[in-house]
Amino acid sequence: MPHNLDHTIALLSRTPAALDALLRDLPETWTLSNEGEKTWTAFDVVGHLIHAERTDWIPRAKTILQFGDTQPFAPFDRLGHLRESQGKSLGQLLEEFSRVRAESLAELRKLDVQPMDLARPGRHPTLGTVTLSELLATWAAHDLTHLHQISRILAHQYRDVVGPFSVYLGVLQCAGHSS
Amino acid sequence: MPHNLDHTIALLSRTPAALDALLRDLPETWTLSNEGEKTWTAFDVVGHLIHAERTDWIPRAKTILQFGDTQPFAPFDRLGHLRESQGKSLGQLLEEFSRVRAESLAELRKLDVQPMDLARPGRHPTLGTVTLSELLATWAAHDLTHLHQISRILAHQYRDVVGPFSVYLGVLQCAGHSS
Repeated sequence: MPHNLDHTIALLSRTPAALDALLRDLPETWTLSNEGEKTWTAFDVVGHLIHAERTDWIPRAKTILQFGDTQPFAPFDRLGHLRESQGKSLGQLLEEFSRVRAESLAELRKLDVQPMDLARPGRHPTLGTVTLSELLATWAAHDLTHLHQISRILAHQYRDVVGPFSVYLGVLQCAGHSS
Repeated sequence: MPHNLDHTIALLSRTPAALDALLRDLPETWTLSNEGEKTWTAFDVVGHLIHAERTDWIPRAKTILQFGDTQPFAPFDRLGHLRESQGKSLGQLLEEFSRVRAESLAELRKLDVQPMDLARPGRHPTLGTVTLSELLATWAAHDLTHLHQISRILAHQYRDVVGPFSVYLGVLQCAGHSS
């Protein structure tokens, strides 16, 4: 389907509540466990979503609208979530994600993106030319990548205890990367 | 980690609200689109979860507690969701899932499963011997398999519109099966 910005916003506005419903007060054996060395916990992922909200989507959209492809986006710090989440509880991170997402969507409305603007090009530091439309669609798909990752991280904790049923559980066969 | 039934119940009790927050009133181009021929939509998946709730988890737990491994579980109908969802809206299915899940968890409490019971064996029609513990852990992991699948189905609808960003979106690389 072609990119419909209203559909993107519909998804973006739902993610914080979905993560809150899934993760708030879930036992920490689920939320603070990862998939092995150098992988993330669900807690880390929520920190990453907050960090991306602050430094990635709206700042990059503004760069495109202001400078087009004459100025590359600032690179994204994939470890930025460590600073975001230090000393915080998962409940606090979920509230913060909900707040910064609402702020981003308010900013997006203020940018008043017109259909013509969606085709405007920007410069990604490694991918080269990308359009505003692609950036905003990726914002929503990025939420889904991390919801997909969180469901896989949680399921990983049950890899052994499901016994022979593991062959029927698609999430345990997933090799999709989500960093 | 060893199987902790309270942790399983914690996850099971959160899934309906998480799916509701994600999917309710989301545009139908997201919720009624699939990943290609013979694949499911998010709508189909919610119907499947309702069907499993009615015919799989608690009925099988009761079979184990009553008959042990002397009587195999009734086979699961993988197309049973078609009957569950016929003529209904996604909003109706989400409400129904929430209701049948609450009923299942009330039934589970009534079964008053003791630590000793968790090791009791049952007979799966194709997997052979499985324990009550494995069945109940699988109930939670099955929720996660389908949350994982739904995030992948939704992301698939944006496969083209994200353009070059697709290389960074793990969910678009996922080959995990979820049927």
